[in-house]
Amino acid sequence: MTIATFAMACGILAVLYGLLTSRQVLASPAGNETMRGIAAAIQEGAQAYLGRQYRTIGIVGVVVAVLVLYFLGVTSAIGFVLGAILSGAAGYIGMNISVRSNVRTAEAARQSLQSGLTVAFRAGAITGMLVAGLALLAIATFFWYLTGPADLAPSDRTVIDSLVALAFGASLISIFARLGGGIFTKAADVGADLVGKVEAGIPEDDPRNPAVIADNVGDNVGDCAGMAADLFETYVVTVGATMVLIALLVKGVGAAELSQLMSLPLAVGGVCIITSIIGTYMVRLGSSQSIMGALYKGFWTTAILSVPAILAVTHVTLGGDLNAVFGADLDGQGGYTGWALFWSMMVGLAVTGLIVWITEYYTGTNYRPVRSIAKASETGHGTNVIQGLAVSLEATALPTLVICVGIIVAYQLAGLIGIAFAATAMLALAGMVVALDAYGPVTDNAGGIAEMAGLEDDVRTRTDALDAVGNTTKAVTKGYAIGSAGLAALVLFGSYTEDLKYFNSALGLVEPPDFNLSNPYVIVGLLLGALLPYLFGAMGMTAVGRAGGAVVEEVRGQFRDNPGIMAGTSKPDYARTVDLVTKAAIREMILPSLLPVLAPIVVYFVIGAIGGTANGFAALGALLLGVIVSGLFVALSMTSGGGAWDNAKKYIEDGHHGGKGSEAHKAAVTGDTVGDPYKDTAGPAVNPMIKITNIVALLLLTALAHGAV
Amino acid sequence: MTIATFAMACGILAVLYGLLTSRQVLASPAGNETMRGIAAAIQEGAQAYLGRQYRTIGIVGVVVAVLVLYFLGVTSAIGFVLGAILSGAAGYIGMNISVRSNVRTAEAARQSLQSGLTVAFRAGAITGMLVAGLALLAIATFFWYLTGPADLAPSDRTVIDSLVALAFGASLISIFARLGGGIFTKAADVGADLVGKVEAGIPEDDPRNPAVIADNVGDNVGDCAGMAADLFETYVVTVGATMVLIALLVKGVGAAELSQLMSLPLAVGGVCIITSIIGTYMVRLGSSQSIMGALYKGFWTTAILSVPAILAVTHVTLGGDLNAVFGADLDGQGGYTGWALFWSMMVGLAVTGLIVWITEYYTGTNYRPVRSIAKASETGHGTNVIQGLAVSLEATALPTLVICVGIIVAYQLAGLIGIAFAATAMLALAGMVVALDAYGPVTDNAGGIAEMAGLEDDVRTRTDALDAVGNTTKAVTKGYAIGSAGLAALVLFGSYTEDLKYFNSALGLVEPPDFNLSNPYVIVGLLLGALLPYLFGAMGMTAVGRAGGAVVEEVRGQFRDNPGIMAGTSKPDYARTVDLVTKAAIREMILPSLLPVLAPIVVYFVIGAIGGTANGFAALGALLLGVIVSGLFVALSMTSGGGAWDNAKKYIEDGHHGGKGSEAHKAAVTGDTVGDPYKDTAGPAVNPMIKITNIVALLLLTALAHGAV
Repeated sequence: MTIATFAMACGILAVLYGLLTSRQVLASPAGNETMRGIAAAIQEGAQAYLGRQYRTIGIVGVVVAVLVLYFLGVTSAIGFVLGAILSGAAGYIGMNISVRSNVRTAEAARQSLQSGLTVAFRAGAITGMLVAGLALLAIATFFWYLTGPADLAPSDRTVIDSLVALAFGASLISIFARLGGGIFTKAADVGADLVGKVEAGIPEDDPRNPAVIADNVGDNVGDCAGMAADLFETYVVTVGATMVLIALLVKGVGAAELSQLMSLPLAVGGVCIITSIIGTYMVRLGSSQSIMGALYKGFWTTAILSVPAILAVTHVTLGGDLNAVFGADLDGQGGYTGWALFWSMMVGLAVTGLIVWITEYYTGTNYRPVRSIAKASETGHGTNVIQGLAVSLEATALPTLVICVGIIVAYQLAGLIGIAFAATAMLALAGMVVALDAYGPVTDNAGGIAEMAGLEDDVRTRTDALDAVGNTTKAVTKGYAIGSAGLAALVLFGSYTEDLKYFNSALGLVEPPDFNLSNPYVIVGLLLGALLPYLFGAMGMTAVGRAGGAVVEEVRGQFRDNPGIMAGTSKPDYARTVDLVTKAAIREMILPSLLPVLAPIVVYFVIGAIGGTANGFAALGALLLGVIVSGLFVALSMTSGGGAWDNAKKYIEDGHHGGKGSEAHKAAVTGDTVGDPYKDTAGPAVNPMIKITNIVALLLLTALAHGAV
Repeated sequence: MTIATFAMACGILAVLYGLLTSRQVLASPAGNETMRGIAAAIQEGAQAYLGRQYRTIGIVGVVVAVLVLYFLGVTSAIGFVLGAILSGAAGYIGMNISVRSNVRTAEAARQSLQSGLTVAFRAGAITGMLVAGLALLAIATFFWYLTGPADLAPSDRTVIDSLVALAFGASLISIFARLGGGIFTKAADVGADLVGKVEAGIPEDDPRNPAVIADNVGDNVGDCAGMAADLFETYVVTVGATMVLIALLVKGVGAAELSQLMSLPLAVGGVCIITSIIGTYMVRLGSSQSIMGALYKGFWTTAILSVPAILAVTHVTLGGDLNAVFGADLDGQGGYTGWALFWSMMVGLAVTGLIVWITEYYTGTNYRPVRSIAKASETGHGTNVIQGLAVSLEATALPTLVICVGIIVAYQLAGLIGIAFAATAMLALAGMVVALDAYGPVTDNAGGIAEMAGLEDDVRTRTDALDAVGNTTKAVTKGYAIGSAGLAALVLFGSYTEDLKYFNSALGLVEPPDFNLSNPYVIVGLLLGALLPYLFGAMGMTAVGRAGGAVVEEVRGQFRDNPGIMAGTSKPDYARTVDLVTKAAIREMILPSLLPVLAPIVVYFVIGAIGGTANGFAALGALLLGVIVSGLFVALSMTSGGGAWDNAKKYIEDGHHGGKGSEAHKAAVTGDTVGDPYKDTAGPAVNPMIKITNIVALLLLTALAHGAV
């Protein structure tokens, strides 16, 4: 069995795990008729939204596929389509599981907390394993086909270009899905809260609120489908970029050895699927009844088991000798050993663990940051927001330091390839991390269904307990995703600079572009790159504000035209609200999503026209790094700050600083509303944005070198 | 008359203008006894704060002066002390004028709007001319002494090091003054508003509020003294860095020609003081009674007159031939002409004009951004803040594009020196711009005094009208300051890279540090640099929150212990509140101010120890650029966003969306509170922070090269 087929087998195992676990989940009881009716409405809305979103993305996708075909050839076009379809599929399947598990979680919570946790976590695990499994399957199969049946050398340009095109397909879908879903979920959430909680004075998830179904649909299309597409993309891009970088960078090795090296990321991905599956079986409430503890048991089991597992596959993949030196001229180094690669991957695992821990510190209710926001709520809305912003700014510091140390250590171990392997090891845990995240929207929905169906109070207490933990796990995944995206983007940037060297003469460059920081075109590129996340964030926030405002108008209109809704004698028109949010979200997602696709192209051609081709490439390279640097901070601050605001509200609701209904609580609700588009729309969408900018630059380079542009 | 003595004469002219105009302002009537009593309390508080602040800074200053003396020699130490003392003096004198003009503006507003405007603007103009005049005088005198009586060549290292030390002195004072004043003013403001407006339900500036005097003191020590020290620093650093860069970069010219070139920034500064003075006489209400229009008349007169004035001094300074080519090897160029330098300076003026216009768009009540925040206030606190954050993110885009175009055009004209001259031309208008800004706190105080002294309603209406414009002019100055700081910092960065080449062998470097973007130490440096403004911002915001909370406790305590205060039968203890805020602000300013001083030193030594000396310098250089890039966005977004929030509140108070007291107004007050530390504490302090990081790096380099460390 070759390494690629081992990886494919692990991918299939993940898919099988998904299928079997789905049957288990679907076999559990779906509750009474009211509950099933509510769940059906959510299902219908989610399906309608996703259908329309994919139709819109499909149009963009077809246009881009034709462009890829024209500029880069048929293999790249196939890669692009494969990446796009599987990214979409990951989101679609995840959503489908999610909308079926929500009602079953509510029903299971009538039995016990453990039962509810089991159903909800299994639902999350299905999405997690499918994301990791499909992603690994896509790359492994593609690589296996190209270097096997298609008989290409692993360093052949067609292989490299096709892997980049595969990543591009995944990224393009994911930015639309992340942003569209993010706008949908937060527009519905903000709109529902503003009219429901604030104006009409009815509780969250009250069935009289016409936006309540849209709010629940949003959890599924944003936090589940959008997130799944995003993490699928991160996985494909990271593993793909690592393989591409190896192909570009490692000289002085034969095709067989190169193939071994390029297969190592696949092998690591494969073995970590197995450790992730084992981890899922460890999620069980202990005597302390701590839900977070149960979830962490799963995560840490996976992380710890991955250490010997990675060591073993590295040993096997590299031919049984970890001391053997590979390569002759490796990024200025003299070659590196299996041990160096192994330790680089351990750096990746350490970075993952530390970022999880730091994010928990900044967003958990047990620590200073969240409590300081809760305390600041006592003196009003303004001080709550000020303290939240302060926390969001501060929360960037430790992750940045961890990433910097990670970069330096991995680089010392094995140069740029060390950084690439660190990123790969981070992503190898994606199955488990996505499982923790996808668990969130299921419990959120379960709580909503329990409320709307008028289930017993203790059921709602249990679903609330499950849901509270979801806030932290969601924040943790985002920190993890953006941290790994930072490393992956550096790998892409490394590929860009290597590609420039490779294509130097094909591009008609007399000398390589001057990437020196004192070149003003580099400075301009850095500034323009740094601008992109800000502009993108502004667009995302404005979109939520605008779409949320439309929801407010709609709900006010329904209350006005049909007084029976508030009296409880007639039902609101849920579908009309869902339809409105659907249209608004799709309309609003287009422009910002195109920003990172078009910006690199425009910057290259404009600066190239002014300062010459070499400076065009220099400015473009600096733009890539500018996006990474600035995007990391914007995304980290938004996702951590948003999570902290959310949990500060929860902390007050747990009876601190006056509890529910107090003035402090009102201020905390404001903070939570502000944090919503921060953490669920603009912040996480920066993650695919960073990578798509880098990938477009790589593709542009290839197209230019092939003389096609 | 040499150019340096011409510049010194212009500096003296500015000081004379200040003295004469002071006499005019002080001669105008100071109102009735109540008014004078209130003004005296503000004066006393401001003096007490500034006294204590300067004592604290003095201790830091003496320690640093000793270090400079030890590592860099006596001339540098003198430069440092001169810069520090004059920076402090600019703030001190500005504050002294401001606290005397406030009551006179209130009294003049009893006559007419024009009278009030005249007194307030004259007060601002005094500060403006003193800032520009003292700054020019300091550099010109120092340069004249070193190249004249001290008989040093203009390119002598002592001259270069001393100019950098002069800038360091100015910067070090200014970061403390900006941050300390910013924390004071916003802690008092937020605290007074929270207890007064929100809890006790008394209007702003109500004399029963124990924090009301502290609030008015804050306007003077933050918006006036802090701002003046900041702009003094920006002026000294920009002109000084331009001269240093010329000395480092221009080869193949004799001492006389080099002296001509180095004097040109001084000549431009001098002639623009004259155009600024002329501009101040054009500030007059037209038939439209538009206050903003009157102020802009002054600004545009200065800007337009500066074009021929700069052309003339360039012609004279460069020996009467603008086509003559200077220099042989200029940053890869073949030398440049007077015309090239002139046009570079026109780029600077154009950037200034555009940034003023863009800032007005983002913070003025007539345009989309502010109105969108006002509209979003209708749906509550949360949507107000969301829209405000969206505007603050978006507001970075156009200024960045303008700066990028400015960099490219100036570079095309005259290389790095073109960028330096563009920055110098921007700063040459500082006298006028500071005049517009310093006008703000005077009118703000005048309104407070009118309220507290119970003056007629129409007086308060007039002072309110004067004050509303102050919000926009304050935002405009901040946009201008940060834009020019971005360019100035690039010039400092250029000096750093040139210095590295110069000291290459003295530093024991085998080859120059690798500033290539693909060097991971460069990436780490960029990340760490980008982190600094975030961490600094977090510290500033937290400080305001903490100190504001202390004010809330204090005021609540006074209300509780002395019920006569609310009844109006006994006076609150204003002095105790002032004293509390003073202590809190001084305590809170220390740590964040030391961050940019220590960070470059730590990064150099830590990275140097891990990756070798060359990579230490590479990471340090990247850190400088990271601070510039990230700081520009953090500062622009904070200052514009804060201004927009403030004016959205004003727009609602003008009767839109329900007007004063409506729910929308309450939401807008929240936004305003959030914007306060954004725009007046954290945002503007980023400006000196960027430069101090760069200057410390330059000094470190020199100290290392001299073998002193």
